[in-house]
Amino acid sequence: MHRPPLKHCRVCGTAVAYRLPDDGDTKERAVCPACGTVHYDNPLNVVGTVPVWGAEGEQVLLCKRNIEPRWGKWTLPAGFMELGETTAEGAARETHEEAGAQFEMLGLFTVMNVVRVGQVHLYYRSRLLSTEFHPGHETIEARLFTESEIPWEEIAFKTVKETLACYFADRRKGRYDIHTLDID
Amino acid sequence: MHRPPLKHCRVCGTAVAYRLPDDGDTKERAVCPACGTVHYDNPLNVVGTVPVWGAEGEQVLLCKRNIEPRWGKWTLPAGFMELGETTAEGAARETHEEAGAQFEMLGLFTVMNVVRVGQVHLYYRSRLLSTEFHPGHETIEARLFTESEIPWEEIAFKTVKETLACYFADRRKGRYDIHTLDID
Ligand SMILES: [Zn+2]
Ligand SMILES: [Zn+2]
Repeated sequence: MHRPPLKHCRVCGTAVAYRLPDDGDTKERAVCPACGTVHYDNPLNVVGTVPVWGAEGEQVLLCKRNIEPRWGKWTLPAGFMELGETTAEGAARETHEEAGAQFEMLGLFTVMNVVRVGQVHLYYRSRLLSTEFHPGHETIEARLFTESEIPWEEIAFKTVKETLACYFADRRKGRYDIHTLDID
Repeated sequence: MHRPPLKHCRVCGTAVAYRLPDDGDTKERAVCPACGTVHYDNPLNVVGTVPVWGAEGEQVLLCKRNIEPRWGKWTLPAGFMELGETTAEGAARETHEEAGAQFEMLGLFTVMNVVRVGQVHLYYRSRLLSTEFHPGHETIEARLFTESEIPWEEIAFKTVKETLACYFADRRKGRYDIHTLDID
């Protein structure tokens, strides 16, 4: 999902110029000198779940990454939201793809801005219906962790670390809120 | 912010082919036969605020649209999130641009999926600090409405209607929650 800089018009292929468009816009955009198309680059949404197991949600499912970046590190199932799906549907799709888990979706849990990489991450809570996992090719291993077993130093992303910390804090309080966070 | 279909590679300008990429992806993407770039089209975020005035937030600021679509209809200040800003910063920027209002940002309020158009809309509550508005070129008029004055039949978008309905319902309850909705 890497986006190399836009150099050519998506409609006609002509080399673009970066300039202020003629419509009063105050930001430079890639404008096509041939067909006039104005190109916008916008933040992307990453969607995932916190899949939990146990009568009191005492275990969380993590996936060991089989892809770069952060190969071999642990993460919650998550990935880029696609056209044609809701945030919750995307989060469920990623959980199926990466963990091959059976689960039911619960509510929205974290909404995190990661401005540095132009992303918004949205995690939902989900309840596992079985402890059999069939991880896809992006995952080396999928397994359950209690809070004390979480490999905090081996978590792939800060968004995942923050979401896990929110989960265990809310679990102790006995109430799950929706958390909004800005990540450096 | 209209996105015409991608026909040419953003890197080299060669005409693309829509096909499954070679990396195990299960969706057809625009792939460049010359340089191999895979292009992804993803949902966009729209961010805005519910600016309120009065000791008990009894009035809401609406803007009469001076642009298509829905020229002349009323909306909450909102627009596409940009790179380099958080959802809250984007929502504040749009409120400045469209209403020229002075306000302080409050919490996240609605998160709405509009799958049909590939968008996620996020609204924050905000508290107006003055009743002087200096609307930008996208707005004909900015004014305050009590609940009974809201022109429900003249609201530009369903997301705005739903957000206003949530606002007045929560106001009656005396507690503001974060609402997640899917919009047809
Ligand atoms: Zn062009
Ligand atoms: Zn190319």
